Amino acid sequence: MAEADEERVRDIIRAWASAVEAGDRRGILSRHAEDVLMFDFPNTVRGLDAYAETWDFFYAEPLDPIVFRPGEIAVTAGSDVAFATCEVHCDGTSAGPLDFRLTVGLTKQEGDWIITHEHHSVPTVEERFILDEEE
Amino acid sequence: MAEADEERVRDIIRAWASAVEAGDRRGILSRHAEDVLMFDFPNTVRGLDAYAETWDFFYAEPLDPIVFRPGEIAVTAGSDVAFATCEVHCDGTSAGPLDFRLTVGLTKQEGDWIITHEHHSVPTVEERFILDEEE
Repeated sequence: MAEADEERVRDIIRAWASAVEAGDRRGILSRHAEDVLMFDFPNTVRGLDAYAETWDFFYAEPLDPIVFRPGEIAVTAGSDVAFATCEVHCDGTSAGPLDFRLTVGLTKQEGDWIITHEHHSVPTVEERFILDEEE
Repeated sequence: MAEADEERVRDIIRAWASAVEAGDRRGILSRHAEDVLMFDFPNTVRGLDAYAETWDFFYAEPLDPIVFRPGEIAVTAGSDVAFATCEVHCDGTSAGPLDFRLTVGLTKQEGDWIITHEHHSVPTVEERFILDEEE
C-alpha cells in the first residue's frame, strides 16, 4: 500500500512537470487543492487562483521550448499525508537555465492525492548566507 | 489523535527553534533523522553530521543575541507522516535580520515524530525571477 502511494505521488509530480513543459495550464492545476500554499522563488502565494497566476510570469517571455524535468523524486507517504522532494531542471523561460529545489506536500482526499503545498527555491546568491571557504 | 499529532509536531518545531535561539547545538539535533535532507539557503545538505555543520556558519560571527522565532506553524499530520510550514524571523547573525520560509517533513518512528526533511529558503533577490509590476 505504501509503495503504491509513493508511486502515485511520484506520478502526480511527473504529470505536473509534463504539463508545465507542455504549457498545459489546466493540467498544471489538476491535482492542486483550492487552498494550496506555495513558497515561490520571490514570494508566498496562497490559493489556487494566485498559484495559477504565477505561471503567467513563467510563460511570459520564453526564449526556447520549456524544459521542466524533475530529477529523482524521494517520496515519504503515509496513508493520508505525504511529502516529496526533488531537484528540477528548468530551461527555456526568460530566467534562463536553472536548477531549483522542490518540496511538495500532499493529502489524500476521496481516495487520491492532492497537492496542498509547494516550496520552490533557488540556492541563494546573497553573499551574507554563503560560507566563504577561503576564510 | 490527529490533533495530538499536530500539536506534537508544532512543539517539536518550537523546541528546535528555542534550541537555535539558545545556542543549544545538541538540542537543535535532538529530533532529527540520521539521513535528514536539508535544502539550505545556498546548498543541499544530507545527513545529520552535515546538517550539524551548517550551524557552525550560523553561529560564526553573531552581531547580537540570536533571535529565531517561528510564526504560525501550519501542520498537516497523518498517523505516521506529517509536514509543516511556517515563516521564521531570524536576527543576530552576521546575515542581519531576515525572514525565511520553512517546510519541515517528519515521520513517526517508535511512537514519536522525527524530522527527516527541512527546506529553508529566503525570497530570491535575483531580478530574473521577479515580476516587474510596472511592465
